[in-house]
Amino acid sequence: MEMNTLNNNNNHHHQSDSSSPPQRKRVMNPVDPEEFRKQGHMIIDFLADYYTKVSNFPVRSQVEPNYLRKHLPDSAPLVPEPIESILEDVQEHIIPGITHWMSPNYYAYFPSSGSVAGFMGEMLSSGLNVVGFNWISSPAATELETIVMDWLGEVLKLPQQFLYKRSNNNGGGVLLGTTCEAVLCTLVAARDKKLSQIGRDNIGKLVVYGSDQTHSSFGKAAQIAGIQNVRAIKTKRSNSFALKADSLLSTIHSDVKNGLIPIYLCATVGTTATTSIDPLMELCDVAKEYEIWVHVDAAYAGSACICPEFRSCIDGIEGANSFSFNAHKWFLTNLACCCLWVKDHNALTKSLSTNPEFLRNKASESKQVIDYKDWQITLSRKFNALKLWLVLRSYGVENLRNFLRSHVNMAMTFEGLVKLDKRFEIVVPRKFSLVCFRVSPSTIARSNYYYYYHDNNNNKNNYDDNYHNGHGYGKLVNDDYLVNELNRKLLESINNSGKVYMTHGEVEGAFMIRFAIGATLTEEHHVIMAWKLIQEHADSLLLGSS
Amino acid sequence: MEMNTLNNNNNHHHQSDSSSPPQRKRVMNPVDPEEFRKQGHMIIDFLADYYTKVSNFPVRSQVEPNYLRKHLPDSAPLVPEPIESILEDVQEHIIPGITHWMSPNYYAYFPSSGSVAGFMGEMLSSGLNVVGFNWISSPAATELETIVMDWLGEVLKLPQQFLYKRSNNNGGGVLLGTTCEAVLCTLVAARDKKLSQIGRDNIGKLVVYGSDQTHSSFGKAAQIAGIQNVRAIKTKRSNSFALKADSLLSTIHSDVKNGLIPIYLCATVGTTATTSIDPLMELCDVAKEYEIWVHVDAAYAGSACICPEFRSCIDGIEGANSFSFNAHKWFLTNLACCCLWVKDHNALTKSLSTNPEFLRNKASESKQVIDYKDWQITLSRKFNALKLWLVLRSYGVENLRNFLRSHVNMAMTFEGLVKLDKRFEIVVPRKFSLVCFRVSPSTIARSNYYYYYHDNNNNKNNYDDNYHNGHGYGKLVNDDYLVNELNRKLLESINNSGKVYMTHGEVEGAFMIRFAIGATLTEEHHVIMAWKLIQEHADSLLLGSS
Repeated sequence: MEMNTLNNNNNHHHQSDSSSPPQRKRVMNPVDPEEFRKQGHMIIDFLADYYTKVSNFPVRSQVEPNYLRKHLPDSAPLVPEPIESILEDVQEHIIPGITHWMSPNYYAYFPSSGSVAGFMGEMLSSGLNVVGFNWISSPAATELETIVMDWLGEVLKLPQQFLYKRSNNNGGGVLLGTTCEAVLCTLVAARDKKLSQIGRDNIGKLVVYGSDQTHSSFGKAAQIAGIQNVRAIKTKRSNSFALKADSLLSTIHSDVKNGLIPIYLCATVGTTATTSIDPLMELCDVAKEYEIWVHVDAAYAGSACICPEFRSCIDGIEGANSFSFNAHKWFLTNLACCCLWVKDHNALTKSLSTNPEFLRNKASESKQVIDYKDWQITLSRKFNALKLWLVLRSYGVENLRNFLRSHVNMAMTFEGLVKLDKRFEIVVPRKFSLVCFRVSPSTIARSNYYYYYHDNNNNKNNYDDNYHNGHGYGKLVNDDYLVNELNRKLLESINNSGKVYMTHGEVEGAFMIRFAIGATLTEEHHVIMAWKLIQEHADSLLLGSS
Repeated sequence: MEMNTLNNNNNHHHQSDSSSPPQRKRVMNPVDPEEFRKQGHMIIDFLADYYTKVSNFPVRSQVEPNYLRKHLPDSAPLVPEPIESILEDVQEHIIPGITHWMSPNYYAYFPSSGSVAGFMGEMLSSGLNVVGFNWISSPAATELETIVMDWLGEVLKLPQQFLYKRSNNNGGGVLLGTTCEAVLCTLVAARDKKLSQIGRDNIGKLVVYGSDQTHSSFGKAAQIAGIQNVRAIKTKRSNSFALKADSLLSTIHSDVKNGLIPIYLCATVGTTATTSIDPLMELCDVAKEYEIWVHVDAAYAGSACICPEFRSCIDGIEGANSFSFNAHKWFLTNLACCCLWVKDHNALTKSLSTNPEFLRNKASESKQVIDYKDWQITLSRKFNALKLWLVLRSYGVENLRNFLRSHVNMAMTFEGLVKLDKRFEIVVPRKFSLVCFRVSPSTIARSNYYYYYHDNNNNKNNYDDNYHNGHGYGKLVNDDYLVNELNRKLLESINNSGKVYMTHGEVEGAFMIRFAIGATLTEEHHVIMAWKLIQEHADSLLLGSS
């Protein structure tokens, strides 16, 4: 290949004129358009073939730790290798080591939904390779982002204060990578707003609020921002694991009494464990009284709110300061794409703006443009909006709604199947496309597994200790422990089969299997197949002796 | 197109067996492999054509603020639009609004070097769409990253403590998005290490160090991390704008005397304004005495250190705790790719790890694997290593070295041309591929521009005030001001021509034009053309009356 030839001499079609110094030899051209075309078509075909075959691969990779080093050389090659060899290695050594998030049989965590449009948007962004830190560095990258976030905000029926144009440029949306960034940026904005009133030395007195169901990124963001007091307010099954406004209020009262200063609440619409929904209206009322910044993390469930029948999940959003959801989770936008809207972008930019000499320019100083560098943690940023723009245009809002509904319908089907099998129970009622279930305690009490365990009770120290060291379960040798154990074994045996991949959650000490529908290729027959597989593994576990 | 058809009925080739509930109608298939293939080939051809034409576009976009809204609809479409219409809009409305970082005539900021291999790696990562937050979520994504960072660390001749395998798994590399993240992560690690010894209430006493040349992301990271005391130690032209160890020491002394606690130094190899190099050895010696974490930010110049003749720039790195450079700047890896190595990854994970129930798994608990979520700010992450792996393999280390050398050689050529024209001066001696120059004060003192200005001196309040409000220059109406003004006008007139794009810097009050070579397509004839253009614009500005 020409591009890989060292010091090739063929590349003198650009002749400098006679007054210039002699043209030096070109080492290589790493953006040779014909090489780009050739390799690009190869990779497209490689991926198209991958999508055709993806349902055949073990969903969760079955490799052992450190499998890859033995397949790869110890050091980087000194000389070029052809793309053909690289793709062979991808096929032979990489594909077996990936967990196939694009598989229709993927039901773990929350799925990450890719699509043709999301991928094409990413290609355009990566191929144009512009850096959009401020307006002048690529005006279209900034302007398309503002426009598309206004579009999507309207589809979500966000209050006008969150839309750039409708809010007279006070609010608006920005595309970040993940919810962690959305939480960190808004938390820092809330922190600095308060500290500018009370003095920076009071950082140790600040306190932030979430529930015990709030995503771990909240605690991590607080840790990064130097905030010590993080409340994870207890929720209960009887209240569907939602954060109650009176629990928030009493926690605030107690903190304020102790001289602490409340600044931030992270409310969740669609929690990770069970997709529970915090009541925004009541929580915002409490927060308002204490001038607390309310961020609404709808990482997963936010997508569903484009459907009128789910929009009520974010009723009360008027009272919040910011709202985010991950378009890469359930909105067909390839990783990573977190949509954040704020009511007052000055609060962000007061904390996050920098104005070094090398970035100064007329447009920024005219205040007629947005510089998104000041709405985020990092300076550099890609042309993020292309992906989301392509998704919205390629599918259209009605199709997107119907697509999400199809996942919810499949989850209803799955839930119905679970309910028909009396050995199982639904742990928390389904709200969107996640079903939380387990083999019920009464089934286990009647099973061979139960008798086997109790017969071997004296030997319990040898029982499963390998796995449970560090889990904190090792000491709870009672029936609750057994119920969790059997469900854990069931999940593990299913995942080891490679036929589907699900992960777990835990509420009030109960281990449950999470069946999260959202992978783009999943159809109803996959869901039905998955349920049969679960039943088969349950059969053999409940009837067998281990 | 089938994929865009609402509720199409053709998609029943997967029949569920007779015992299943009736198959629901498929809304659409957003990962239809044939649609993927068709659109993918279209986009590849679109981008290949773009690279063929990119040198013809105005390098810096010439659009006016808010140009885009009038070309786009007010709201998202309800029904699907074909990819052909979308690509037409990209061509017609987006391309004119982007600043062409891929143009061979791009010399602004530091260029962002894309390549065929970098792009193909991004495509594979985006197409596989795996989320690699922990090992189990995609083992290959984690393991390839560790391996490739060991490869690249060896190419850079980093001390063994920075390499995972060679350090007995204590050190190692991780791929982040940008340097801002590398600085924030290591700063938080250093902060928490100290606070765990002295108590979290002492956060207000912590102090961090950089120079007045350190990148703005350092101050921003400190701001995010809640650290109030940020020292930007003054550098001087006489010392090539490097941070002197004795300046650091005296600043530390004064802080310590005032009861503050030094924790972190951000040293720079290749500063943004002038590519100056902080002396790592001496700085690390000072830092060691005070147990200060030293991070080496080599965002731009780190790439050059793969060449033996530049490796001495990071001599002394043994004494540092962490080192980072941006492979998207000058290492042919499409945006975004920041390479960070640390000597002690436990310092990172102690601050940044989370262990929520839903992510627990056997592999993580075995401690035999890396979970990169604990080395970074966010939870979710792409399969980052593919890009860098493809770059290293597609080009090979020798070719990469020669490619970087070709940029340095072109910069030498340009520097030589500047020196031949007595009207200009080199402001700071060139070290890598950045040339900092300006029209010299003596030239301006002899120019028509100078006489014009002095003739109109009484009218100075009306002179250029539009632009300079907010710049802080407005009041400096003296010859230094005039010199800066003329150079600013020169830069602006060149950039307005669209033929090349350069940006500026400022050292000791002197405005200078930065000519940064690094765009992948730049060849020597482009550089020579750029110089002629600069001369022409200087001619007309120096001879003309405005």
